Amino acid sequence: MTITPPDLRRTPDNDCFLRALRREPTERTPIWLMRQAGRYLPEYNAVRARAGSFMGLCTNTDLATEVTLQPLRRYDLDAAILFSDILTIPDAMGLGLRFVEGEGPQFERPVQDEAAIQALVAPDMNRLRYVFDAVASIKRALDNRVPLIGFSGSPFTLACYMIEGAGGGEFMRMRQMLYARPDLVHRLLSITQGAVSDYLVAQREHGADALMIFDSWGGLLSADGYEEFSLAYMRSIIAAVRATPSGRDVPVIVFTKGGGQWLERITECGCDAVGLDWTSDLRDVRSRFGSRVACQGNLDPAVLLSSEAGVRKGVHAVMRAAGESPGHIFNLGHGIMPRTPPENVAALVDAVRQHST
Amino acid sequence: MTITPPDLRRTPDNDCFLRALRREPTERTPIWLMRQAGRYLPEYNAVRARAGSFMGLCTNTDLATEVTLQPLRRYDLDAAILFSDILTIPDAMGLGLRFVEGEGPQFERPVQDEAAIQALVAPDMNRLRYVFDAVASIKRALDNRVPLIGFSGSPFTLACYMIEGAGGGEFMRMRQMLYARPDLVHRLLSITQGAVSDYLVAQREHGADALMIFDSWGGLLSADGYEEFSLAYMRSIIAAVRATPSGRDVPVIVFTKGGGQWLERITECGCDAVGLDWTSDLRDVRSRFGSRVACQGNLDPAVLLSSEAGVRKGVHAVMRAAGESPGHIFNLGHGIMPRTPPENVAALVDAVRQHST
Repeated sequence: MTITPPDLRRTPDNDCFLRALRREPTERTPIWLMRQAGRYLPEYNAVRARAGSFMGLCTNTDLATEVTLQPLRRYDLDAAILFSDILTIPDAMGLGLRFVEGEGPQFERPVQDEAAIQALVAPDMNRLRYVFDAVASIKRALDNRVPLIGFSGSPFTLACYMIEGAGGGEFMRMRQMLYARPDLVHRLLSITQGAVSDYLVAQREHGADALMIFDSWGGLLSADGYEEFSLAYMRSIIAAVRATPSGRDVPVIVFTKGGGQWLERITECGCDAVGLDWTSDLRDVRSRFGSRVACQGNLDPAVLLSSEAGVRKGVHAVMRAAGESPGHIFNLGHGIMPRTPPENVAALVDAVRQHST
Repeated sequence: MTITPPDLRRTPDNDCFLRALRREPTERTPIWLMRQAGRYLPEYNAVRARAGSFMGLCTNTDLATEVTLQPLRRYDLDAAILFSDILTIPDAMGLGLRFVEGEGPQFERPVQDEAAIQALVAPDMNRLRYVFDAVASIKRALDNRVPLIGFSGSPFTLACYMIEGAGGGEFMRMRQMLYARPDLVHRLLSITQGAVSDYLVAQREHGADALMIFDSWGGLLSADGYEEFSLAYMRSIIAAVRATPSGRDVPVIVFTKGGGQWLERITECGCDAVGLDWTSDLRDVRSRFGSRVACQGNLDPAVLLSSEAGVRKGVHAVMRAAGESPGHIFNLGHGIMPRTPPENVAALVDAVRQHST
């Protein structure tokens, strides 16, 4: 398949998500949902079964495109997000990513000692070509209707999995190394930072209209450690993206789960928007930082496991807290959960529309 | 064994912990460590093996006294904390607490539907007599050297385990019920709140010099949910304790793990001190709330897995952040981890002493 490079100057027909990221007025509150393509959708599960494995799905351009578009057919959403995994970069470094049913991602060759960290090198971006092909294919399939979000895990979050070999615990091996051998952690983070920068720039060049950095585990760090081991690297990545012709004006969202205490610093890292998990007081965040960055969030995804009435109540609380001024993008505080009834997502999107128009 | 009621008016010989809780000047920074009696100590493991089971240890007055005092023999600590578990109250309600090796606490009969919650009644405090006997025995064994801390889990934290049946996950059953049936959650919390109040008052009457409420899972809640489902109940408990003759002037510490964003409200709940996990910026918290409450914390317990040099560096950072004004109690941001080398704890206590005298 030959893919025509996208025209990055062309604005999507529905650009309210991009305008909200720039804190420009919008006629309604834009909405998209983390993990909007996923296991709660029967049509996703059908394609996932066809692909054979999770990585089989991510690496198949047509199937990755198909599942990215599925939620947009069901719901009136204002953005699509690349269907992929946050651990593609370490996989391309040779760590051997695999998904064990019911256990989440694992690496066959985690990076657990000094020798392994010293041996680590930046991945050849050609090994991530399947991601860029998916971005270009999705961009074409979207036919300019809504913007496409590209993304990466943050260096710290990738490092957690690379050192630990799997998620799910308290990342004790990583946390021990932070204090015992910070030099090794910094080496790992530096290599990963360069790869994330290149990865995001390539996604941008293949058609991503906005970029998001998922710092899923930054909340494990101490206040000082967060600056040193996570935020500093995200700041450098944003600067590197901004230094490229295509990345100069791409909106960037930073989402540190559990990072609500550090928003003062996060909002100064060069990002256009902050993702907020459900523990943050959105009203307070908007009043403190709303003139500096856009805010994306922050309904507890567990609300979607209740009832339509529960969902509408939750949506209204978030919308009231967000207030009238521009720069709010409705989202959950974390990804949609697998057991979520699709009709509750429909009620959520409808409630956001009703409230904001 | 007949136990003479303690004289609650008698001040311990070393009362710097109690003075720091009242934000009075102290000649040095007091220190104690969450889970200071525990699996990292070989002498603890020997007693634990003798007891046969974890609850066998908690319910044996002599053995519970012995393990409570063990860390005080090794280290120059300024307080003892009752050796017990946070789940004694639901156990006394009939849920059947058991500890499965390597899996943490579990309830044989969790409270998972409306009928089970409707059937729930407050526990007979006589079923918790073993805890009060331990408090009195420890108090006597301490011989007035240092203060004794009594404690309970918060109603919300107890409810998480009661509904889920075990810890370790994302408490999805609880989080779903919060939105689907808040009325049921409130019923469960109300019953638990009364029990926690009675439990803490009885510990005080048996000799506890200070009381601590562990809200280990409050950080799972949204900002509004935290006020409604956790903080409101802790506020009521503190008011109930204060309304008793023995509890009128007992210092109370509230520790919500992951609650750093909500300290403004926590410091107004009637507590004398807040426990801080390692994600909070201690310097910032002290400057904002140091004139209102004492601060207890907040070194990442993972520091104790590094080296003596790493421990000393971590201690100095905390001490500098705490500053000179009264009202800081040195502690970890969470409990000591089982794999912690005891000599690193010795280095930690020594570093706190060196820095503060």
